[in-house]
Amino acid sequence: MAATSPPLKDELDIVIPTIRNLDFLEMWRPFFEPYHLIIVQDGDPTKTIKVPPGFDYELYNRNDINKLLGPRASCISFKDSACRCFGYMVSKKKYIFTIDDDCFVANDPSGNQINALQQHIKNLLCPSTPLFFNTLYDPFREGADFVRGYPFSLREGVPTAISHGLWLNIPDYDAPTQLVKPLERNTRYVDTVLTIPKGTLFPMCGMNLAFDRDLIGPAMYFGLMGDGQPIGRYDDMWAGWCCKVICDHLGLGIKTGLPYIFHSKASNPFVNLRKEYKGIFWQEDIIPFFQNLVLSQECTTVQKCYIEMSKQVKEKLGKIDPYFDKLADAMVTWIEAWDELNPSKAS
Amino acid sequence: MAATSPPLKDELDIVIPTIRNLDFLEMWRPFFEPYHLIIVQDGDPTKTIKVPPGFDYELYNRNDINKLLGPRASCISFKDSACRCFGYMVSKKKYIFTIDDDCFVANDPSGNQINALQQHIKNLLCPSTPLFFNTLYDPFREGADFVRGYPFSLREGVPTAISHGLWLNIPDYDAPTQLVKPLERNTRYVDTVLTIPKGTLFPMCGMNLAFDRDLIGPAMYFGLMGDGQPIGRYDDMWAGWCCKVICDHLGLGIKTGLPYIFHSKASNPFVNLRKEYKGIFWQEDIIPFFQNLVLSQECTTVQKCYIEMSKQVKEKLGKIDPYFDKLADAMVTWIEAWDELNPSKAS
Repeated sequence: MAATSPPLKDELDIVIPTIRNLDFLEMWRPFFEPYHLIIVQDGDPTKTIKVPPGFDYELYNRNDINKLLGPRASCISFKDSACRCFGYMVSKKKYIFTIDDDCFVANDPSGNQINALQQHIKNLLCPSTPLFFNTLYDPFREGADFVRGYPFSLREGVPTAISHGLWLNIPDYDAPTQLVKPLERNTRYVDTVLTIPKGTLFPMCGMNLAFDRDLIGPAMYFGLMGDGQPIGRYDDMWAGWCCKVICDHLGLGIKTGLPYIFHSKASNPFVNLRKEYKGIFWQEDIIPFFQNLVLSQECTTVQKCYIEMSKQVKEKLGKIDPYFDKLADAMVTWIEAWDELNPSKAS
Repeated sequence: MAATSPPLKDELDIVIPTIRNLDFLEMWRPFFEPYHLIIVQDGDPTKTIKVPPGFDYELYNRNDINKLLGPRASCISFKDSACRCFGYMVSKKKYIFTIDDDCFVANDPSGNQINALQQHIKNLLCPSTPLFFNTLYDPFREGADFVRGYPFSLREGVPTAISHGLWLNIPDYDAPTQLVKPLERNTRYVDTVLTIPKGTLFPMCGMNLAFDRDLIGPAMYFGLMGDGQPIGRYDDMWAGWCCKVICDHLGLGIKTGLPYIFHSKASNPFVNLRKEYKGIFWQEDIIPFFQNLVLSQECTTVQKCYIEMSKQVKEKLGKIDPYFDKLADAMVTWIEAWDELNPSKAS
C-alpha cells in the first residue's frame, strides 16, 4: 500500500444512520470520499436522502430492509437511529466506522483538523491491554510504553475489537443531566487512548465508533428502539454491554479516548426524557445483570456467546418487563439474519 | 478557611525518603513551605541532610527508627527509599503526600507551574467511581459529568483513598525498557484523572503519590527492599497491589493521572536491573496471586485485611522464595508497629 493511500480503503465501510444535514458529508468529504458509505435511512422510506456527487455509497430504507430480511426484518428498529446496525450486517468489509450526522470534524488543540477515521484505524490495529492497567495509558502509542511493574507476560496484549471515540462541544449526557446542565460543553481535549479493563462495563456511545466486524460484528446489535418500542437512546448502550461481556469472555479488547469529533447540537432533552425514562429505571437491574453474566466455556464464537446471552436476557431480565422477552427473541433473529447475509462466517 | 490558606495545611504531611539534591526543596519551596515535612533518611545515619531555613520538618535516620520501633524496626527497609513508609507511620495527619528528591515542579501545556499538591488534594477530596467506567473520565471535575448510560445509583461514587500522579520527562520504566529505550522521554500531558476500576491491578509508583492515612494508611507498607534483601524497586509496586485489593474489598477508590511532576533523571539501568531481576520473574506469579486474592467478610478494617493478606502471602508466595516468608512476617510486624504508634486507630 502506498503511503499516500488511505489506510484500509478496501477493508472499511462507513455506516451512517441517516443524513438530515447536507453539510455533514461536505465537511467530511476529504476524509470519507475514499471509503464506501452505507446509509441506513431511519424514517419514512418515501423521502429521499440526497447524497452529493463524488461519494461511493449504498442507501437502504425500510422497504429495502424488509425485502432483504423478510420476516426477520422485525429485529431492525424503525424510526430510530438504532437501524444503523442493519448496515453492519450488510457490509462485506472487515472494519466499520459509524458516525451520526450531527458530528463534525473537530480540531485538536493546535487547531488542526482531526482525522477521526485514521485514529480509529490506529486504535483497532494495535493491541489492547485489558488485563492490567498501564498508568501511561496506551503503551503502544509513540513515546509511550509499559511502565515499571507491568508484567512482561501480559505485554503482548489482546486483539482490539472496538474503538470508542469521544465528542467535543456537546457531551453525550442523558436527559436529566441535559436538563440540569443545558449549557455545559466539553472543551477538554484529553490526549489519550486507553483500554477498558476486563470486568468493567462502560457506556458505549454510537456517535463516533469503530469496530472489527470479524471479531465482534454479530454482537453489535442495537436492539429494539423507536417505533412501537417502550424505550429509546439505549441502542448503543445495549450493544456496548453485550459487546463488553463478550470481549472479556473471548479475550478481546475495547479502547476509548481519541479520536474526538465535534458534536454540533444537543438533542431535545424533553423528547430524550420520554425515550429514556424506562431505561433509567431498567439499567439499575441491567447493569448488575451484565456485571454478573458468565458465559459458558462452550461459547467459543461471538454468535454462540450472543445466543447464550439472549437466553439469560429472557430468563433474568424478562421479569422486569415483557420488552426483554421480545428483545431476547430479536437477539436470536438478529443472529439468524447475520448468518444468512454472512454465510462464510456463520455460526 | 480563608481562600488564601493552603488547603489542608493542618491535615497533610509531606514524606520524602531522603534529600540528596538541595535544589529540590528550593524549587518546591512556594508549594511545600506551608506544610510539615517528614524526611526519612535512607542511608548512613552519620551523614547529615541539610534542610534550608524556612521549612517545618522532622528528620529520621536509622538510629531514630531503631530507637522508636525497637525490634520491630526490622520491618523498615535500610539503604532503600522504601524506608519512607516509616514516615507514613509516624505522621499524625490524615493525608500524606510523598515525592522523590529527583522530582521537580512540572509545567502544564500553557507553561504554568503545576501545583501537584493541590491537585492531589482535589483528587482525594472528591469521590472515585470504580464500579463503572465513565468515558469522559473524572465526572466530578469541572466541565465534566457522568455520561448517558451511567447508572444513577452509582453516581455517588466511593471515598478516594489514593491519588497516583504521573511524570513528565523521564518515564517510570523498568530496567529492560530503560536499556532498550534510553532516550525516550514522556512529553505528553494527558489532561485527565480517572478511577482505576474495581478488580483491576495497576503499577503504583511512589514518586508522586498521595493518600488518606485514615482510609488506607496501614496498607501503605513498602516491604523489605535494599540492604540485605534480594530485591529492590518493587517497594511501591508491592504497596500498590496490596492497597488495590484492600480498596476493592473495602469499597474505596484509587485515582491516577494528574498531577504531573518533572522527573529529572533516570536512575542507572544496570543497577536497576540487578535490583529488579528477581522481581521481574516473581511478578509473573505475584500478579495472578493478587488478581485471585479474596478477603473474607470478617476483614472490615485495613489492619484485618492486611493481616489476612500476610497469611495468604506466606501460604501461596512462600513457595516461590523464602523471601516471601520473611516479607509476610514483616507485614505483621508493620501492623503491630503501626498500631503501637497510632493507638487510637489500632486494629
